[in-house]
Amino acid sequence: MSDPAQTPENALRAATLHVSDFLKPDGRSLTLYGLSPVTVSGEIPAPEGSIEPRPLMRWHPLRSEWVMYAAHRLERTFLPPAHFNPLAPTTDPEHPTELPQGNYDIAVFQNRFPSLSLTAPEPTDAQIGRAGHGACEVVVFSQQSEGRLADLNVPQMELLLRVWADRTNRLAAAGLKSVLCFENRGIEVGVTLHHPHGQIYAYDHIPPVQETTLESMKAYREKTGRAWLPDFISEMNKNGKYIVLDKEKAMSVVPPFARYSYETWILPTRPVRFLSELSDIEIASFACCLKDALIRLDELFGVPMPYLLTVHQAPLNTEGGDDFPLHIEIYPYLRAAGKLKYLAGTEQGAGEFANDKLPEIAATELRNFKGVQNE
Amino acid sequence: MSDPAQTPENALRAATLHVSDFLKPDGRSLTLYGLSPVTVSGEIPAPEGSIEPRPLMRWHPLRSEWVMYAAHRLERTFLPPAHFNPLAPTTDPEHPTELPQGNYDIAVFQNRFPSLSLTAPEPTDAQIGRAGHGACEVVVFSQQSEGRLADLNVPQMELLLRVWADRTNRLAAAGLKSVLCFENRGIEVGVTLHHPHGQIYAYDHIPPVQETTLESMKAYREKTGRAWLPDFISEMNKNGKYIVLDKEKAMSVVPPFARYSYETWILPTRPVRFLSELSDIEIASFACCLKDALIRLDELFGVPMPYLLTVHQAPLNTEGGDDFPLHIEIYPYLRAAGKLKYLAGTEQGAGEFANDKLPEIAATELRNFKGVQNE
Repeated sequence: MSDPAQTPENALRAATLHVSDFLKPDGRSLTLYGLSPVTVSGEIPAPEGSIEPRPLMRWHPLRSEWVMYAAHRLERTFLPPAHFNPLAPTTDPEHPTELPQGNYDIAVFQNRFPSLSLTAPEPTDAQIGRAGHGACEVVVFSQQSEGRLADLNVPQMELLLRVWADRTNRLAAAGLKSVLCFENRGIEVGVTLHHPHGQIYAYDHIPPVQETTLESMKAYREKTGRAWLPDFISEMNKNGKYIVLDKEKAMSVVPPFARYSYETWILPTRPVRFLSELSDIEIASFACCLKDALIRLDELFGVPMPYLLTVHQAPLNTEGGDDFPLHIEIYPYLRAAGKLKYLAGTEQGAGEFANDKLPEIAATELRNFKGVQNE
Repeated sequence: MSDPAQTPENALRAATLHVSDFLKPDGRSLTLYGLSPVTVSGEIPAPEGSIEPRPLMRWHPLRSEWVMYAAHRLERTFLPPAHFNPLAPTTDPEHPTELPQGNYDIAVFQNRFPSLSLTAPEPTDAQIGRAGHGACEVVVFSQQSEGRLADLNVPQMELLLRVWADRTNRLAAAGLKSVLCFENRGIEVGVTLHHPHGQIYAYDHIPPVQETTLESMKAYREKTGRAWLPDFISEMNKNGKYIVLDKEKAMSVVPPFARYSYETWILPTRPVRFLSELSDIEIASFACCLKDALIRLDELFGVPMPYLLTVHQAPLNTEGGDDFPLHIEIYPYLRAAGKLKYLAGTEQGAGEFANDKLPEIAATELRNFKGVQNE
């Protein structure tokens, strides 16, 4: 098939983002996003049993990182009815979900049980630590409870990239320093809500992974006089063995330094710091590579691949992140058919991964599947 | 009961370490350790099907850490007979295991499928990266295939601490920079060999976790003029709410900054860098705290607790690690009855943990069990 993202009509459609903001009865925010105008029927719902979040943070003196405590999360004493899906549009007003009926594609709301909150109170005298200041949001990818992120068509995937960009901008405006959009997928890794969704964590400081990338990119420029990403893209293009799909403005690769056996990165070929800096045509290529990568991972062993997907963007409200390369990392948890990768001694005790699969072999295997051409 | 570790006889017994070194027919080393003199009957065995390890390392340019590739690990084409336990003493010479019959308590041998090797060859021209230089060893805790680490009696646990110290000394003598002794326990976290055992990874460089601790301890001294550990022990003693067991020369605590819900640390109360620096009486207290912590974790939910246990010691052959505090960290994977903790978006994508349980609450719960007094 021809790539729908490459036609002028689609470029136009993708660029049209419809957004409506709402307030839930329990005070939390809700934003609905659509490829066509957003409409809502009925009241904006919220599940019963709201709680007062009191997240705390404490400093780990050996690892030099913050640890978040969300003890209020265990206060969830109310039990939802069987098969209750809080992420589906509300059909029975007696059992309100998180979302209304209406015309919209993607919904974002504040997490009811957040690990971080913009209104976190200061700790009590008996508690050490500081307020867990930040934000936790839920991103519902579709009104369809069945299916997966890879089932979004390319315009819907483009919309998701624009939604992540919009949330990042809003959380930056709230003064936060780093935004992590992610999807955790698979019952094997503890996911209990099967409705396709992701989450956003936004921090009031720069977390260790982003801090290290920031420093690594600065060191790279000091050493070479150049940004890292264009050099990496050149290296990938040189013999192609790490590339899974090349869409010109974006590519997916199993990087030579992959930590997981089929770890896949989606990168724009032009260095940008944020999703919001991508042009419409870059968004289209990026969305296509993302959908393609997810499809191939499910094709790999013929089962839905459990994975963690994280969106890496530069720190916000911070100097010096010019060379931080926007990209997506997907960590597939199956290292072979039926074999999960566990993080054990070396990964957790030393911070170094052991991988049984050479990335160039993994990329070759992934290229053998059809990906988006399947559609 | 009175603590057996506190009697003069036991102090004497614990200090007696019997060691014998052997070479396996495939060239790997084997060391047997005993509380009484080591004897062996029959040939030193090795399972059939040796391979040539060719571990590689590559640098992760964004995380600034090494990634280990052990593609040879997938070459394991030979299939052991059903119920074959390579860690039990050999009973049928037709099916040799890793260990001989004989009198010994603990055995250590080079891993047959190592992620790091002192004889790793340089990569081929077609491969980027460098030789995966280092060592991977297997530590068999007991000749008993059933049971668990917590079943070792206190003198046997003391012996294990001395074995870990001896391995660290030997790997230091081989020029390596950091030694990580660990136990990964539980089918929930991918453990397939149930015979009680741990592993050792030894690196030719300082891994990220040890590097960060090194830097954190230096910064603490620069700021306060003191080492971190005595201040931490004072803080723990101040109101006791984080302490699980206090044996005077060592204590177990759920640290105020625990990342896992029932994370337990075993610390000597005097700052030392290495297990080998502990006195006999300190070894006895430390062993007792370790056994006690493991017992309590199994008592907590009435099921064998899946966990990762890592031994943190200062870097080797390196300047500046004077304040690095020797200690053991145990990460229990159950955060509540039947509920596993998974590392998801914030843990892996940002490097920051979210924990639903306040450490002081977790410590109180663990104190409610009997621990070593059960015996």
